[in-house]
Amino acid sequence: MPDAGGGDATLRDVTSPAPTPPEQTFDWLDAEAGKRGDAGLVRQLRPRAAGDRDLDLAGNDYLGLAKDKRVAGAAAAAALKWGAGSTGSRLVTGSLELHTELEHELARFCGAQAALVFSSGFTANLGAVTALSGHESAIVTDKYIHASLIEGCRLSRADIAAVAHSDLAAITHALSTRRKERALVVTDSVFSVDGDLAPLPELAEACRAHGAALLVDDAHGFGVLGDAGQGAVHAAGLAGAPDVVTTITLSKSLGAQGGAVLGPRRVIKHLVDTARSFIFDTALAPASAAAALAALGVLRSEPELPSRVLTAAGTLAVQLKDAGFTVSLPDAAVISVHAPSPEAAVAWAARCAEQGVRVGCFRPPSVPDGISRLRLTVRADLTESDLDTAVKVISSCAPAAS
Amino acid sequence: MPDAGGGDATLRDVTSPAPTPPEQTFDWLDAEAGKRGDAGLVRQLRPRAAGDRDLDLAGNDYLGLAKDKRVAGAAAAAALKWGAGSTGSRLVTGSLELHTELEHELARFCGAQAALVFSSGFTANLGAVTALSGHESAIVTDKYIHASLIEGCRLSRADIAAVAHSDLAAITHALSTRRKERALVVTDSVFSVDGDLAPLPELAEACRAHGAALLVDDAHGFGVLGDAGQGAVHAAGLAGAPDVVTTITLSKSLGAQGGAVLGPRRVIKHLVDTARSFIFDTALAPASAAAALAALGVLRSEPELPSRVLTAAGTLAVQLKDAGFTVSLPDAAVISVHAPSPEAAVAWAARCAEQGVRVGCFRPPSVPDGISRLRLTVRADLTESDLDTAVKVISSCAPAAS
Repeated sequence: MPDAGGGDATLRDVTSPAPTPPEQTFDWLDAEAGKRGDAGLVRQLRPRAAGDRDLDLAGNDYLGLAKDKRVAGAAAAAALKWGAGSTGSRLVTGSLELHTELEHELARFCGAQAALVFSSGFTANLGAVTALSGHESAIVTDKYIHASLIEGCRLSRADIAAVAHSDLAAITHALSTRRKERALVVTDSVFSVDGDLAPLPELAEACRAHGAALLVDDAHGFGVLGDAGQGAVHAAGLAGAPDVVTTITLSKSLGAQGGAVLGPRRVIKHLVDTARSFIFDTALAPASAAAALAALGVLRSEPELPSRVLTAAGTLAVQLKDAGFTVSLPDAAVISVHAPSPEAAVAWAARCAEQGVRVGCFRPPSVPDGISRLRLTVRADLTESDLDTAVKVISSCAPAAS
Repeated sequence: MPDAGGGDATLRDVTSPAPTPPEQTFDWLDAEAGKRGDAGLVRQLRPRAAGDRDLDLAGNDYLGLAKDKRVAGAAAAAALKWGAGSTGSRLVTGSLELHTELEHELARFCGAQAALVFSSGFTANLGAVTALSGHESAIVTDKYIHASLIEGCRLSRADIAAVAHSDLAAITHALSTRRKERALVVTDSVFSVDGDLAPLPELAEACRAHGAALLVDDAHGFGVLGDAGQGAVHAAGLAGAPDVVTTITLSKSLGAQGGAVLGPRRVIKHLVDTARSFIFDTALAPASAAAALAALGVLRSEPELPSRVLTAAGTLAVQLKDAGFTVSLPDAAVISVHAPSPEAAVAWAARCAEQGVRVGCFRPPSVPDGISRLRLTVRADLTESDLDTAVKVISSCAPAAS
């Protein structure tokens, strides 16, 4: 090599690192951890005990069904009947009649032609975004979409335009100036940080005016919005639309685990054939599928549950606003309360936890607008006394400057 | 626009598609489906009934624990005790003491410092690959790695070199000619199509000689290989190594659902802080975590289970070879039997299914070498009579030309 002529420029650029003692291989992780520590960004897992009695204003069990005896009982019965696991991919041995029944019932409830169950909302979003786009497509997204949709976009090989939050004109502009004929607009229905609602009817109209399909992640709308919890897409009059695809989770309003894609039959068939996060993943466990199915039955038989969620959210938001906080007025179950700084938000949430009230704490870089906040969620089964406690504790624990 | 001068070349490239009738938006999917149909690549979901009595030679329930009463019973009890779902991300309300206990026991069993449970092996692989690489890294992979690892590589922004299958020299060459100082070698332990074993000790040596870390997906090795099922990484003498990270599934040998990453404590902490498929996903359902924990207990108390799997695999492979088929000699639970063509493979598998024997059928493009085959898997609880039936049915259903 040293005697090579001028034609070997490539090889001369090469780094060939010396052997490293194995115990130093991951030293770079300590450096990264140090930086996160300095920035106050180290995350701690705080496992719950089974008997935990905290007032939970942080989870996504919006209808309070995760511990409902009908739902947990269905999970238990399914584990005993079908086994603890599904034993394989949906395409090999993993598809059970239980999955088919759940898919049928989800589609029927939401007014979609068909549905496909994934092992998580995360993998459902990966599958839907990648299978419905590709290098011949353009994707236009609101830049506040969920991380799993962003990962889907990154995997898609499509041209990506991520525009300002809730900016219909920017979506329209990106659609009209795209360089690929095929296009997909990707949005959350209810955005996960502030709980605000995307303008779905207007987005659908913009899509139709520009020959694009619409993919809506209704994770925080399904079970909470619509006449009887059919979700934000249904509430927007888009149920069954031939150009709209919806993803939902089974782990929020349905209190279980998993995700699903709802849409035209040809979209669902296309996902079965091409969605890598469906094909190369183990099917959802029987207990989770059965729990979701049972929770859907509860939602059908108690159509007042969604409105209880909205009432609780409205009540809590107004009371916190009256107490002087900067509060988002909730479109669904999520409420955001501004904090003066990241440090103040962390301390505020920690003081609430000490008082037995669990609240979420969002701060940069996981908030897209740079504003630190408490993120609160409500459930259908919160009592007036729970809400009083919540307001009292959040107020008494608040930082002086807020 | 028509009157624009020469300075507006960009805008003139723009496509601005006309409005499309909504019902035509997804017409392109029909065209794609037509192409798949012509190529014989349409996939069908064939749901199992609860009372299904087929002889299963296609699933991944290697130790036969998915329906074990101790395992399914633990799943049922956990659903009743903890609820059907975990209610949130591991970082918000989703972490249960049950997850912590499972992580502790997995790490202890495999000889790793620490473990982190994900909702699937798919998301565990996404998280491990992306968090341990990045745009300042090189990734070197065997090109037959699992789809979820490939997706992780695509998301990683690292320089990727995917080299020929089981080619240690090519791995070494790619490591020594990389342009990034930091490097990660990514491999399956047992490759999922042919069931062959990667040369893990040699790969670890190559990594050490070139300052790289090693990430091993032990999905098909864990529970089957090693003295007592601790997996291929343990069997290779790499358990607890400071520069080796392992991913496993809870949905194969443990008969449940989920995945986990095992490795040095600082790697696990790094994943908690940075792995997007961990942070932005709902935690594994209590029933699945408890089932995996119970299955691990069964494996500990019955250390002969893994050797039963290997014996069954060896017996089946030899008998099929003696019957005249081209058969891989199995390193774990997976056996590949060559078929003369994709059509012959599909017909062969269908005839076996009619006779009550479920076998996998792999064909292009989901086989990297273009060879169509039956893919068989064995379980610890297969009897001699099951194996006899398997050989008889597979032989009697074989295409004439094989």
